[in-house]
Amino acid sequence: MTQQTADQAAQADPAQGEQNAQALLAGPQSIVTVGVDLFADALVAQSVDVQRVDWRPPLGGTEAEVQKVLFDARRAEANATAISRVLATGAVLVDVRPASEALEMSPGMFFHAGPPITWERASGPLRGALMGAMLFEGLADSPEEAEKLLAAGQLRDGTPITLDSCHHHRAVGPMAGVISPGMWVFEIADPATGRSTFCSLNEGLGKVLRYGAYGPEVVDRLKWMSAVLGPLLQQAVQRRAGSSAGPIDIRSITAQMLQMGDEGHNRNRAGTMMLIRELIPELLELGAPANDVADVVRFCNGNDHFYLNLVMPACKLALDAGRDVPGSSLVVAMARNGTDFGIQVSGTGDQWFTGPAQIPDGLFLGDYGREDANPDIGDSAITETAGIGGFSMAAAPAIVAFVGGTAQLALSTTHRMYDITLAEHPIMQIPILGFRGAPTGIDVVSVVRTGILPQINTGMAGKVAGTGQVGAGLVNPPAECFVDAIKALAATIA
Amino acid sequence: MTQQTADQAAQADPAQGEQNAQALLAGPQSIVTVGVDLFADALVAQSVDVQRVDWRPPLGGTEAEVQKVLFDARRAEANATAISRVLATGAVLVDVRPASEALEMSPGMFFHAGPPITWERASGPLRGALMGAMLFEGLADSPEEAEKLLAAGQLRDGTPITLDSCHHHRAVGPMAGVISPGMWVFEIADPATGRSTFCSLNEGLGKVLRYGAYGPEVVDRLKWMSAVLGPLLQQAVQRRAGSSAGPIDIRSITAQMLQMGDEGHNRNRAGTMMLIRELIPELLELGAPANDVADVVRFCNGNDHFYLNLVMPACKLALDAGRDVPGSSLVVAMARNGTDFGIQVSGTGDQWFTGPAQIPDGLFLGDYGREDANPDIGDSAITETAGIGGFSMAAAPAIVAFVGGTAQLALSTTHRMYDITLAEHPIMQIPILGFRGAPTGIDVVSVVRTGILPQINTGMAGKVAGTGQVGAGLVNPPAECFVDAIKALAATIA
Repeated sequence: MTQQTADQAAQADPAQGEQNAQALLAGPQSIVTVGVDLFADALVAQSVDVQRVDWRPPLGGTEAEVQKVLFDARRAEANATAISRVLATGAVLVDVRPASEALEMSPGMFFHAGPPITWERASGPLRGALMGAMLFEGLADSPEEAEKLLAAGQLRDGTPITLDSCHHHRAVGPMAGVISPGMWVFEIADPATGRSTFCSLNEGLGKVLRYGAYGPEVVDRLKWMSAVLGPLLQQAVQRRAGSSAGPIDIRSITAQMLQMGDEGHNRNRAGTMMLIRELIPELLELGAPANDVADVVRFCNGNDHFYLNLVMPACKLALDAGRDVPGSSLVVAMARNGTDFGIQVSGTGDQWFTGPAQIPDGLFLGDYGREDANPDIGDSAITETAGIGGFSMAAAPAIVAFVGGTAQLALSTTHRMYDITLAEHPIMQIPILGFRGAPTGIDVVSVVRTGILPQINTGMAGKVAGTGQVGAGLVNPPAECFVDAIKALAATIA
Repeated sequence: MTQQTADQAAQADPAQGEQNAQALLAGPQSIVTVGVDLFADALVAQSVDVQRVDWRPPLGGTEAEVQKVLFDARRAEANATAISRVLATGAVLVDVRPASEALEMSPGMFFHAGPPITWERASGPLRGALMGAMLFEGLADSPEEAEKLLAAGQLRDGTPITLDSCHHHRAVGPMAGVISPGMWVFEIADPATGRSTFCSLNEGLGKVLRYGAYGPEVVDRLKWMSAVLGPLLQQAVQRRAGSSAGPIDIRSITAQMLQMGDEGHNRNRAGTMMLIRELIPELLELGAPANDVADVVRFCNGNDHFYLNLVMPACKLALDAGRDVPGSSLVVAMARNGTDFGIQVSGTGDQWFTGPAQIPDGLFLGDYGREDANPDIGDSAITETAGIGGFSMAAAPAIVAFVGGTAQLALSTTHRMYDITLAEHPIMQIPILGFRGAPTGIDVVSVVRTGILPQINTGMAGKVAGTGQVGAGLVNPPAECFVDAIKALAATIA
């Protein structure tokens, strides 16, 4: 039973507590103990069958706020409204466009992952990605010049350099998440409402901009992506969207991924292949130069994470539908800029609740180790916010070879996430759990009451600008995000 | 522990039985009961902790033969030799060729699935497929004429019509498994030995020859497959095989499928996509007409079972390596012709042990029901013989939506198959079981001793010739195959 339905059941049946008490008193078969183990241990010593219930006080001493929010008359309906909007959101691939046009960006504007941050507080990989974007845009001739201009906050001609969160512009970006005007972005739309969201094109693994690398191979790849990949994908996507088959259904592919061992955050193999198989016939019939088409196919084929940048905006599109419902404790965004971890909550508008981003536990590439890793970074935790990624690891046990852990950990993680989520997704199903729906829609109240933090799996960037990827692992948000969020939610109650 | 290693352990430590007896006598904690439940039930009534061990006499009253085979001095080493040869076999896609050339077939020759059978004893779908093959080859002008010629056993010009098992010609075919000279076949080779095996190209689902349909759409599709699909695949496959990347590694793709929710018999989605992503760049650079290339891509893309016809010959290639080891009780083939289910065993050469094919339990398409289904048919049980398919359903819980059952059934089926197999495959791993190797190499002795029959999942053909597919489900071999096999094995012992 999800927290919401448990709460509803409790509200619907005020006699339930009394029944529970009766049940406890009635039988000598077993005793339920809550909290510290001293009493339970004493009973076990007397051969009494003990059911231990893991109870702890709410996170951060928020008893009063939790109580206030739990008794908020708006809460049950607000959460039902918010989550039902999330679950009802479709996602189709309607276009691929230059960011300058799609996101109305002009030279000197840069969007990045996570909550807003200044150059001064930016971590190494975010700085590296911004430097690379300056080079790609032709706004600097060397990494040193790029760094100097970014620190000074203006371009050579005096135009101000502005940094802002992707999330503030209907966009998301993995890892550093840097989007500059000359990059191309996917546009994903909800057919029912026409709302849309955007995400950059995935570059692959290793030395890539989003992991903070900015060398010539990074910049050259970005230039090819804007000159060849973006325009060819645009033609293929537009051709498909205008065909009788209609646009490629990203929600459907994402649901199928979960049947094929992907969880949509760090395993996107099946998703990438399903996307390519949809695009290939269009690409073949564009009349474009054969070697360009072959290059595009090879590039997408060679990068099993290509589909991540379609999952992410689809997740954002769904969660954006759940925003701004007064009284709702649904988390609508989790995002990290490499310094801060931030969340946004339906009932508290666009406010970010932040805490220090943590360093993941996981597996490292080559000779890299924990001391080389930057704290958690990227908008990709939007996948967990939407119930997939780390929340649906049970669907993708093979991911433990990439992020560490065991198959059992993958199963137990998903089971644990049901304790802090509002719904089981009707479309995103996990076969090994008997096609149970993915645990979807984090409830701030449940997180604070249980102390169970959302489980995110993630790539790890090197902490020194220019390094690139150093590993992948598992990480949680800092608890203070949820503590601050429940305080703010409580403050919205008259 | 596999049967083989259990046997070895028992042989290595003759004191084990004594220790077990001591353990039984030593403690009052629990009593192990074997066989009928009367004694166990009496103990439970006295509050004694009872461990029930499910024991039964060997299948078919074969106590003497089982004992003789178990004491065969050759057995442990013979099975170790046979299974290690199976596990060491590679599989790469080296060519696509006309069957006339690859299998040295001339007009009037037809190969089919399962053990050898005559026209008189052939079931509806096998008859339908043979009739369709006559039409495709231009040897008859109507289904009626085809049927008449097949029944008479000769072509219009008096050339004899011959039927033989695919398995007798290094080939396999799904369902009816009919191969005629004008069809094209994949050639899969073991790089270490150069040995190769063959399989027809997959037509898709529904009204197709292998399910016994022979209408004009079936024959037209086969003609296109021989005129366009086969030749283009041949060029792409040869081009790839001759490139620096080398031929496409079918064993590697098959191992990856198991990480992606396929089990390689009735789920081949990920495998099909991985094959296509390997072939696409080659197809693009052939210089072939763009519409033919687009048609080929669309055809392969539109058929999630396309890769089955590559898994099957790869499995046969591995199992053929385990043939003809004197004293080995390894099953090297399980195959059905729609009337008989047959197995072949390493220690008994090319002899078939047969029994009546069963009707699967499963899910039916549209208005079809059990009464429309033909008994079990096809060479595709070679996948289970090699440890995947029904044996690895734990890797593919979503398959239960196709063949019936629950995710729990998928898990428990794989667990049960470890009890009758000789090895855990070092390359074919099942993530949800902590990357445990697939249960590989059926041991006739273990089947007969435990009464656990191999679990096969399968498509179901309509029993009336011309119908096509009516469903998919789960089925077992008839026990008599294994009873007859152990008798024959025992007879090989001096």
